[in-house]
Amino acid sequence: MKLLLIIGDGMADRPLKELSYSTPLEAANPQNMNMLASNGISGLLYAVAPGIVPGSDVANLSILGYDPYKDYTGRGCFEAAGAGIELKEEDLAFRCNFATINDNFIVVDERAGRIHDDEADELEKELQKIRLRTTSDIQVVFRHTIGFKGAMVLRGENLCLKVEAPMPKAGLKADAIKPKDKTLEAEKTANALNEFIRETHRILKNHPINKKREKEGLPKANAVIPWGGGKKPNLKSLNEKYELKGACVAAVSLIKGMCRLAGMNVIHVPGATGDINTDTMAKADAALKALENHDFVMVHVEGPDEASHDGDVEGKITIIRKIDSMVGRILEHISLEETCVVLLADHTTSTRLRKHTADPTPITIAGAEVIKDEVSRYSEREAYKGRLGQIRGKHVMPILLNLIGRAAKFGA
Amino acid sequence: MKLLLIIGDGMADRPLKELSYSTPLEAANPQNMNMLASNGISGLLYAVAPGIVPGSDVANLSILGYDPYKDYTGRGCFEAAGAGIELKEEDLAFRCNFATINDNFIVVDERAGRIHDDEADELEKELQKIRLRTTSDIQVVFRHTIGFKGAMVLRGENLCLKVEAPMPKAGLKADAIKPKDKTLEAEKTANALNEFIRETHRILKNHPINKKREKEGLPKANAVIPWGGGKKPNLKSLNEKYELKGACVAAVSLIKGMCRLAGMNVIHVPGATGDINTDTMAKADAALKALENHDFVMVHVEGPDEASHDGDVEGKITIIRKIDSMVGRILEHISLEETCVVLLADHTTSTRLRKHTADPTPITIAGAEVIKDEVSRYSEREAYKGRLGQIRGKHVMPILLNLIGRAAKFGA
Repeated sequence: MKLLLIIGDGMADRPLKELSYSTPLEAANPQNMNMLASNGISGLLYAVAPGIVPGSDVANLSILGYDPYKDYTGRGCFEAAGAGIELKEEDLAFRCNFATINDNFIVVDERAGRIHDDEADELEKELQKIRLRTTSDIQVVFRHTIGFKGAMVLRGENLCLKVEAPMPKAGLKADAIKPKDKTLEAEKTANALNEFIRETHRILKNHPINKKREKEGLPKANAVIPWGGGKKPNLKSLNEKYELKGACVAAVSLIKGMCRLAGMNVIHVPGATGDINTDTMAKADAALKALENHDFVMVHVEGPDEASHDGDVEGKITIIRKIDSMVGRILEHISLEETCVVLLADHTTSTRLRKHTADPTPITIAGAEVIKDEVSRYSEREAYKGRLGQIRGKHVMPILLNLIGRAAKFGA
Repeated sequence: MKLLLIIGDGMADRPLKELSYSTPLEAANPQNMNMLASNGISGLLYAVAPGIVPGSDVANLSILGYDPYKDYTGRGCFEAAGAGIELKEEDLAFRCNFATINDNFIVVDERAGRIHDDEADELEKELQKIRLRTTSDIQVVFRHTIGFKGAMVLRGENLCLKVEAPMPKAGLKADAIKPKDKTLEAEKTANALNEFIRETHRILKNHPINKKREKEGLPKANAVIPWGGGKKPNLKSLNEKYELKGACVAAVSLIKGMCRLAGMNVIHVPGATGDINTDTMAKADAALKALENHDFVMVHVEGPDEASHDGDVEGKITIIRKIDSMVGRILEHISLEETCVVLLADHTTSTRLRKHTADPTPITIAGAEVIKDEVSRYSEREAYKGRLGQIRGKHVMPILLNLIGRAAKFGA
C-alpha cells in the first residue's frame, strides 16, 4: 500500500461572524473531503501539543515525524534548500521578502504588492551582483523562490544566528536587524544583514521593473529583507526512518526544502503558485504521477494560509473548494484499497486574527483497513467525534505506517 | 481578552450510593455551570497524569503551568507564604493544625473541633512567646491562617527536610516526628519540631479559650502539630512566564501562598472561610473587581474538598450550589466575548473514601472563539464527550493563552 498525505496549509480556522459562525471549511462544504471523512477515521490533530502555536515549518516537521524541539534549526534553511541552494554546515540561511520601503527605510508593504514571479525573477538577476563591502569576507547567495518570497545564505567565518531579524511588517524599519548579544559574531552577522538590505535597495530602487510598477501604481519591490534565520538541520531521511521512497508536490520553498532535506524527491509543478490562484489540478496530476513510483507522496497547498494571513474569507473558501476538486481528481484515479489517503491541516490560521493559532485541526485517514467512524464531514466541528481522538503531529507517521502494514514491531 | 479561572477544590467525585449513583455535581445540577458547558468546550482534566493522585498544591501548581516534578518543594512553603511569612532561602516551612491531644500526647481530634478564627487568633497571640530551649539557635515563626490551620517556619542553621512529619490523625502520637536518616541535621530538625509541639501544648493547655471550650463540651485546641514541610520554591512569576498580570481570590493560605509566590496579587475577601460556609458572593464580587485591572483572575473555593474530607455529601452539594450561584453572579457582569471563563476541579475528592483520588475532573472553557461542542452539563459523566478530550494540567494555561490570542509561535 502507498501513502498519500494531503495538507491544506492553515486550512483550519475559528468560527467567523461573517459566515454566521461557521468556519471556512464548513462554509466551503467540500464534498470530496467529506467523502474521505465518511470513508475514514477522523480526529483532532495538535501538530506539537495543546496550546502550542506552530509555525508551518515546525508543524510540517512534526507531522513528518521529526522532533521540532531537537530537529528545528530555523526556517531559513528550508527556504534555502527549497530554492535549490546547496547548504554547507556553517551557512546561515534566511527567508527573504521582496518589500516596498520608503526613503527612510521604513517598510511600506512587506510583500511588495505580492509581486509576481516573472518580475521577481528579473530582479533576482540584478541581485546576483551583490557584494558586501564592510563585511567583504562574507559571500552572499540570493534566490527568488515564488511570488514575493526568496532565500539568501550568508557564507563565511565568524557568523552566528544570535540576531533579531523579525518578519518584515509595514511600519518597521527595514535595516534595523540587531545583534542579540555583544559577541563579535552577532554584530558581524547583524551588520552583514543590514548591509545586504541596503545593497538590495541600491540595486533595485531604479530598476526598470520598479519604474514600470511605479507607473502602474503598484508598490515597488525596492528592497529584500531577510528574516527567519536558520542553519542546516541534520535530518534522517524518510527512507532511513521509515524505508519510504517519498515525493513532495508543493509550491513554496519552505516545504520543498524541508522535503528535500528529508530525502524526498521534490517535483516541480508548473502553475503551482503558493497562493489561491495555484493550479490545484496540476498538483493532482503531479501527485498521481508521483504515486506511480513512490511509496509516499505529500501534496501541500499553501493557499489557505495565504488567504487567512490576508484576512480574505472568500479567498479561503475558494481555495478550499479548489483543494476539494484536487482531492476529487485524485480519488477518481486511485483506489483506497491500494492507497491510504490522509487529509489534514498543519495548523489553524485564524482569518480574523490573520495569524496562526494553536487550535487543533481536523485530520481524516481513509483507506487501508480502517474501521470507519460516524464522522461524515471534514471539519473542525465534527472531527473530534471520530475514532482517532486527539493526536499529535508525531503520531501521524506511525499511525500511517501501521495502517499500510509497514510498522516495525517493538518486542517479540 | 481576559481570563477567569474558577476552581472548585475537590469538586469532582465518584458516583455515590446515597445519591442513586449520581455524583454530587450531578445531584447539585448547577444551572450556571451547565450554561458554561453549553456555551463552551469540555473535557476531562488530569492535573498531573492518569493514575496520579494529586495533592491540592501539586494540582494547582500544575494547572498554573508549573512542573510539580521540578517546582514542587513541599506544601509548607505555600502555607507560610499564604500566611504572610516572608520566606528566606534556607527556611523550613510547615503547615500546622490546631489539634486536640490527650495527656499521653495522642491526637484525639486532628482539627481541634474545627476551631473558629476568633478563638484561633487568640491562641496565636500566646504562641508568639514560643522559644525552643534544647535547640535554642533556631528561631520559630508561627501564624494562624484560617480555621484550625496555621503555618510555621523554622529558621536557623543545620536544618533539613529529612523528617517524617505526617498529617496529624486521631490515634497517632503528636510529638513523634522522626528523622529520616542519621544526619545531625535530620535529628536536629525532628527534635525542634517535637519540642515545638510540646511547647505549644504547654502554652495552650490551660489557656482561657480552652477552658471555655472545655466547659462548652468542645475539643480543646491544646497543641499545634506541624506537617507537610517545604522550602521556598523558585517559581518564575506568571508575568515572566505568560506576560499576565494575575490576581487570586482564595481563602486558604495554601492557594494564597502559591499565588503569591507566582507573583499574583492576593486579594483578601472578608467572609471567605475555606469551608462550606464561605461567602461565595463576596468572592464573586472580589473576582469581578479584580478583573477590572488584571489579565488573569483565579477564584478558588476550598469548600467542596472540605466537605468531601468530612464525608459530608449534603454539604458538598450545598457548596457546589453556592459556587454555582457565584458563577451566575459573575456571568451576569461579564461578557464571554471579553473574558474567557474556565471552570474546573483541581482533583477528585471521594466523599466516600474521604480522600483525593486520581480520577480525571471535568473542565469547561467558554468564551473567546471556541467551537462549541455538544456537552451541555458540567459533570464528571458528560465532560469526556467534549472536544477538549483528555488534557493534563500542564496544557491548561497554553490552551487558554492560545484562545485569548496571547500564545507565542514556535517556528516561523
